[in-house]
Amino acid sequence: MSLLVLGSLALDTIETPSRSVTEVPGGSASYAALSASYFANPYIIGNIGSDFPASISALFRDHQVHLEGVEVKEGKTFRWGGRYSENFDDRTTLFTHLNVFEDFKPTIPSAFKNASTILLANIHPGLQLEVLDQVKGDGLVILDTMNLWINTAHEDLMKVIGRSNILVINNEESLMLTGERQYIRAAAKLADMGPDWIIIKKGQHGAMMFHEGQVFTIPALALDEVSDPTGAGDSFVGALAGYLEQSRDRSFDNMKLGLVFGTILASYCVEDFSVDGITYLEEADLDDRYDELVTMSQF
Amino acid sequence: MSLLVLGSLALDTIETPSRSVTEVPGGSASYAALSASYFANPYIIGNIGSDFPASISALFRDHQVHLEGVEVKEGKTFRWGGRYSENFDDRTTLFTHLNVFEDFKPTIPSAFKNASTILLANIHPGLQLEVLDQVKGDGLVILDTMNLWINTAHEDLMKVIGRSNILVINNEESLMLTGERQYIRAAAKLADMGPDWIIIKKGQHGAMMFHEGQVFTIPALALDEVSDPTGAGDSFVGALAGYLEQSRDRSFDNMKLGLVFGTILASYCVEDFSVDGITYLEEADLDDRYDELVTMSQF
Repeated sequence: MSLLVLGSLALDTIETPSRSVTEVPGGSASYAALSASYFANPYIIGNIGSDFPASISALFRDHQVHLEGVEVKEGKTFRWGGRYSENFDDRTTLFTHLNVFEDFKPTIPSAFKNASTILLANIHPGLQLEVLDQVKGDGLVILDTMNLWINTAHEDLMKVIGRSNILVINNEESLMLTGERQYIRAAAKLADMGPDWIIIKKGQHGAMMFHEGQVFTIPALALDEVSDPTGAGDSFVGALAGYLEQSRDRSFDNMKLGLVFGTILASYCVEDFSVDGITYLEEADLDDRYDELVTMSQF
Repeated sequence: MSLLVLGSLALDTIETPSRSVTEVPGGSASYAALSASYFANPYIIGNIGSDFPASISALFRDHQVHLEGVEVKEGKTFRWGGRYSENFDDRTTLFTHLNVFEDFKPTIPSAFKNASTILLANIHPGLQLEVLDQVKGDGLVILDTMNLWINTAHEDLMKVIGRSNILVINNEESLMLTGERQYIRAAAKLADMGPDWIIIKKGQHGAMMFHEGQVFTIPALALDEVSDPTGAGDSFVGALAGYLEQSRDRSFDNMKLGLVFGTILASYCVEDFSVDGITYLEEADLDDRYDELVTMSQF
């Protein structure tokens, strides 16, 4: 009975028009696990170098994010640098130093092989498949992916989609992958590939969920200021996975609440740099945004 | 106690990739008044030529749409032709023959000057101002507009915005008019121009309403097939105006329901050609779409 989060652990350098930060916590597993931690105790599957700052490990521990499944390798941790243009319309990758992540071989400790929820956060689909080969039982498999893998690892991506219960994908990617132009049609094609649940993220337009002919939409929260959009999608899927692990209810109505909490964590994520927006949140913070979403979308 | 609908009455020719229709009911007042008719009895302020088909007048009468405020002039009715590209990504105007509409001078019969709701459907802002100059009392003024007037009648548009209670505007237009890039900021600037309520239509992404720091969003219904998008925005604002005239309640919660019914009528509008999707609807049809919206957006 546990939540596995497979993904990358990185030290990020982020440049925005207003401010820059260096060597801050990054990677899909960091955002996803911290966001999930408000609902369940996530176990990260990932790797780091011997230079990984103890302060970040402490931050994870403070949030009951377990690192027993994180391998520490001699060498440097994965580094990534990105620059956002004015208004966050565009992101340029400044550098990608995979370092120890280049030889990452996910290994699931035997205690976690019966995980009830497996979040395959954004990472190479080949690594996602290696994790699925090791887990046992009928845990809920949630898959997040990105455009890069559609082009560079199409075959593996198709395989891992076929073995997932919930596919989370961006709007453009859903269209790119299916050759469709409407989300409802794209979702139908994606469901034919395997997953029972298709969740399409639309950025500032919110998200949509498709399941057996039913559709649910949720708006993004209206924010006064965005500081750093990095990790918004990872936070969304992390909160979704955490909430589903906590609630153990795969009804359409409960899945809606998964999207609600995904939306809330994503909104906190983008308001600050790196993971700062999603750490040390109080229950009242989640309640506030829940109430905002009610005002925003419930009639 | 009545609903005035100022707008154009036209005979449209519409070409889509699948089908073409000629000389069908069109114009902003036609769509808006028919959509409003499910909630209130609208009085159209407009003009037509002596060639206006009796069948269309009968259609209006069947829907309790009053034509006492429509002037019949010797000559031809306004004709408009448009062609939609594949997937409705683009619309080309084939022709615009204003005919008798060129000399349209709106005149409000004295019985209607105390109208409780005044819908200024999409039409030249100069004509919208002429109507506002004639009405008396504190009727609710709902203004719809389009990009054309931002460029060609900017001064009149600013004046009429300043005298409206509710501004309904497209997403791109809201940004164009304010020079902003985010809807929340655009809405704040638009509210500074006068209207208490700003409603931004986002097409397939639904609509947003802004009022005194509160935001409400509603998704568009997920449709299998679009036949003809002409008049969707007019139908949206028409249903909103009709619902507000019927309910006489300007609370935030009730305004939400106005957007709900606007969304429902717009969805019926685009499923068929011309006004065919919004005529002879039953209460059960509105209920069905209401229930769909609940499933789609309520958690």
